[in-house]
Amino acid sequence: MRIARFSSEGSVSFGVVEGDPAQPETLTVQVLAGHPFGDIQVTGQVLPLADVRLLPPMLPSKIVAVGRNYAAHAAEMGNEVPEVPLTFFKPSTSVVGPTENIAYPPFSQDVQPEAELAVVIGRMCREVPHARVPEVVFGYTCANDVTARDVQQREGQWARAKGFDTSCPLGPWIETDLDPSDLAVTCTVNGELRQAGRTSQMVRSVADLVVHISEAMTLLPGDVILTGTPAGVAPVQIGDEISVTVEGIGTLTNRVVKRG
Amino acid sequence: MRIARFSSEGSVSFGVVEGDPAQPETLTVQVLAGHPFGDIQVTGQVLPLADVRLLPPMLPSKIVAVGRNYAAHAAEMGNEVPEVPLTFFKPSTSVVGPTENIAYPPFSQDVQPEAELAVVIGRMCREVPHARVPEVVFGYTCANDVTARDVQQREGQWARAKGFDTSCPLGPWIETDLDPSDLAVTCTVNGELRQAGRTSQMVRSVADLVVHISEAMTLLPGDVILTGTPAGVAPVQIGDEISVTVEGIGTLTNRVVKRG
Repeated sequence: MRIARFSSEGSVSFGVVEGDPAQPETLTVQVLAGHPFGDIQVTGQVLPLADVRLLPPMLPSKIVAVGRNYAAHAAEMGNEVPEVPLTFFKPSTSVVGPTENIAYPPFSQDVQPEAELAVVIGRMCREVPHARVPEVVFGYTCANDVTARDVQQREGQWARAKGFDTSCPLGPWIETDLDPSDLAVTCTVNGELRQAGRTSQMVRSVADLVVHISEAMTLLPGDVILTGTPAGVAPVQIGDEISVTVEGIGTLTNRVVKRG
Repeated sequence: MRIARFSSEGSVSFGVVEGDPAQPETLTVQVLAGHPFGDIQVTGQVLPLADVRLLPPMLPSKIVAVGRNYAAHAAEMGNEVPEVPLTFFKPSTSVVGPTENIAYPPFSQDVQPEAELAVVIGRMCREVPHARVPEVVFGYTCANDVTARDVQQREGQWARAKGFDTSCPLGPWIETDLDPSDLAVTCTVNGELRQAGRTSQMVRSVADLVVHISEAMTLLPGDVILTGTPAGVAPVQIGDEISVTVEGIGTLTNRVVKRG
């Protein structure tokens, strides 16, 4: 099931997207009453997807991301794969949806997209054992862990480099029925392929990451875990259109603009 | 003015604390209608402070913290003062109030408190110029940036080391009338002085930090900036009582317990 969050005629709702993404004009959204965690209730209203504005599929209280989780990306950055997963936060103010722009941060000269599989948490949880990870995962979406690479290299911790406004595009929707173990993850810029990996190349699996992060902190419904990016990162410029595609989910496209 | 957040008879309110903190039995709280940002409205109800339960004075959407902002603390950790402020996030799930316990994280053997002045943001803002910082600061409170030092040293980024549940005690209230430029900041453990510094020793001032952080990201009302810790950090054990005192604000006391 594909769960989207959208605005239509001034109100915000969740909905179930139906139809064939390869034929966008066939896509519709079944409007839900309330939020999609737990038992869902449809209102009966069905809208053409083209008539609504897709929003970030969740407003996470926190986004926990992991660095250097694909060996080839760690190597291209001149780093080893860390012995312990390297975890950092992106703030809620960094989230934008699939129709919004990425505003180039004026304090950087080297902004780079990072295509990632994002895990959306469905239940409040802490100290989740490996076997129970499927119970706390609501679904998966596409993420772009946009990074000011020069700032990341200059500042020891990454709050500004990876936490600036618009640095976390999420969407287009959440796929709830998906095996995350071997999915193609790609990034294209203006249609040209930049990154191409498979989630099977992740050093730590989705389940490993949920266990590791939830050992330390409570995860809330809607919280998001970013699972790292494959090799191929490179700068983008104002005007570029970035697409992140995760097999089985869809494509998240955002344009880079000058900050207003 | 001292603004507290508290629960009383099952409901949560903000209030204005009045009386002499040196004589705790004199303290009362004027109950506010709604939140304290903008014009405040009193309900007319006044309660003895001893009859309410103090909560974290804010529920921040994000906490942005700064590392190595006191030269003597950087030196005791074997670090230089960074050329650019070192910024990281603590998540909303790490916040506890002045009556709650710090749960010792089971994945660490070296938990250390860090006494800090916390800045509470009062207005949505971004790219705040130096001269306008006073307009966006709502007030100041005490913070304990509790740190799993061994995890911090083992993991390159600090999400788990400084983001575990209960790692961010805040309180006891927000002082809105305070010059932050030269305040004593101390940490005692079981009554014994551990850390003692003055905010005048900060490498970057409150205003510098608000400018630097807001250059990258939007700050929302209730967001918190932690300004770094003075020298003297050392481990605590289960059962210890930690007090953070900031001159002109008050004292934040929390006990370390085994995680339940």
